[in-house]
This record gives sequence, structure tokens and C-alpha cells, in this order.
Amino acid sequence: MKLVITIVQDEDTNKLIQRLNQEGFMATKLASTGGFLKTGNTTIFVGVEESKVEDVIEIIKEVCKTTKQMSLLNQPIASMTEGYISYPIEVSVGGATIFVVDVEKYLKI
Amino acid sequence: MKLVITIVQDEDTNKLIQRLNQEGFMATKLASTGGFLKTGNTTIFVGVEESKVEDVIEIIKEVCKTTKQMSLLNQPIASMTEGYISYPIEVSVGGATIFVVDVEKYLKI
Amino acid sequence: MKLVITIVQDEDTNKLIQRLNQEGFMATKLASTGGFLKTGNTTIFVGVEESKVEDVIEIIKEVCKTTKQMSLLNQPIASMTEGYISYPIEVSVGGATIFVVDVEKYLKI
Ligand code: NI
Ligand code: NI
Ligand code: NI
Repeated sequence: MKLVITIVQDEDTNKLIQRLNQEGFMATKLASTGGFLKTGNTTIFVGVEESKVEDVIEIIKEVCKTTKQMSLLNQPIASMTEGYISYPIEVSVGGATIFVVDVEKYLKI
Repeated sequence: MKLVITIVQDEDTNKLIQRLNQEGFMATKLASTGGFLKTGNTTIFVGVEESKVEDVIEIIKEVCKTTKQMSLLNQPIASMTEGYISYPIEVSVGGATIFVVDVEKYLKI
Repeated sequence: MKLVITIVQDEDTNKLIQRLNQEGFMATKLASTGGFLKTGNTTIFVGVEESKVEDVIEIIKEVCKTTKQMSLLNQPIASMTEGYISYPIEVSVGGATIFVVDVEKYLKI
């Protein structure tokens, strides 16, 4: 048995839990903040048979994959008292950090 | 040293923490939601000497054991516009999921 | 890869996360209550290369070290209906509990 601990962005949490449940994996959501990913994030525990670890990782990759999005960066204009020029910049959203930990004993009572 | 990670129902949390403390075990409660157990649940970390892991599991079993309770299921009556018949059904309450993880290094500072 | 799970007092949390980030370590904060340390506490996950575990522990020690502080204990005076004598007593503040767990697989996606 393995425990997959994954830290994902808040906005991916519900979809990930739903997908994991659909595939028969039980996931527990812990509130978490800051750290691995800059925006609000959530830590999820998934208990899983060793042979299914890759399936869980695959689901996390699908739901939480980093994508490039265009965002507007407002930059003050030096020659004006008040004023900004908006530059479109590419930002990465999504992503996940995954730790797989061995479980020596697993019980459901 | 082992880390016992257990996910229990919210309603069993306080009693479990109290029992663990009484027996000399230190438990940390993490807020958690959804997942392993359908109703509101709580994740608890218990750091424990290898020789005491079974004692901790025994306490969790005692406090969180699944019990059958009778609950009323309201079923609409087909022949009436509005109306329900209440059937008593057996539901399981309580229960816990337990993961025991090895701790390579343990420090109290 | 190792996962350092540390439970620290609420008041040390922000400073610890800041120091860990400054030194290049990524920390995730989980809300937690009760247990290992009597006052409000926070559980922090730090994913770290094996060779850097001692550096992380050193930072936790520096930020969260137990210190003795003088505090006033109010003791009722037996001979008076209402009245207290304040005794200065030494109390320990700070402290941390640290668990280092092996990570079999680590991924950032
Ligand atoms: Ni296993
Ligand atoms: Ni050990
Ligand atoms: Ni490793």
C-alpha cells in the first residue's frame, strides 16, 4: 500500500477528487495554504495499492497539468503621472507536487 | 518511530483524541473533508514508538468501530401526489481508515 | 527525497515558512489543532533532498527553539474573599515536533 500525497491548486481540487472517485480511488482533502505552489492550494491524500500508483499519478497529471495562459501585466508609464500600459505575458497555471510514501500497515475498520 | 495517520468521522474525533491523550499518546488533528469516509471527517497524526502501534490501533478500533444503526428512509408513494412512506433501514456509522508510515528520524525540540 | 513533517506553534509558523522559503525550501502549511503542542499549532510539510534534511531541521530549531519566559501565575489568597497574589513562574514557549519520512517517488508536474 502507498500513500500518494499531492499538493494541487485549489481550482483543480474538486475535479481531481471527482476523477479519483470515479476511478475507484478514495481521496481525503486537507486544507492547506502557501508553499509549494504560489496560489491557494490543497493537500490531498490518496491511499492506493502499489500497482495502481501510476494510474493515480496519471489522473493527477491529466487534471492538474501546467498550462500556459496569456495574462495582462500592467506596467506604469514613466512619462505620465498616472497611467499603465498593459503587456500580455505568458503565465503558467495548474501544476501539482506529488510525494509517494510507503505504507507499512493499512487498515479499514 | 512510526506515524499513524488515521481518518475518522468528525463525531469520533474528540473522543479519540481524549482517549489517545489519556493513554499517553500525542495526537495532532488536521482538518479534512470528503473522501475516505463519506461524511465529514478528520485526519489525525499520532507519532508513536513501533512497540505501541498496536495499542494505538486498538484504541482507534474501540472508539471508531463501525456500528449498525436503524435510520428512516423516506420513499415517495407512487399512487399519491405528495406522500412518503418511511422505511427503517440499517446504516453503518463510524469506521476509520488507518495508514502506518515509517518515521526515519524523530525529533522534539 | 524526504518529507519533513513538522508541528510547530502557530506563532512560529509565518517566520518558519519565510525562513524556509528564503533558503530555497518549499513548505506547505496545513491547519491543525491540539495534540503534540498544547497551544494552537500548525503542521508544515517540507519536501527536501536527503542531503538537505539537516539544513531544514537546523532552521526549524533556530526559529522554533523552546525558550523559558517568565509568566505571572495568579493564585487566590485563602484569607481574602476576593484577591490574588501574582507569582512569577517560568514557562516554556516554542518547540516543535519533527518527523522525517522517506519519499519513494517525487514528482513536480
Ligand atoms: Ni505497501
Ligand atoms: Ni522507526
Ligand atoms: Ni529519497
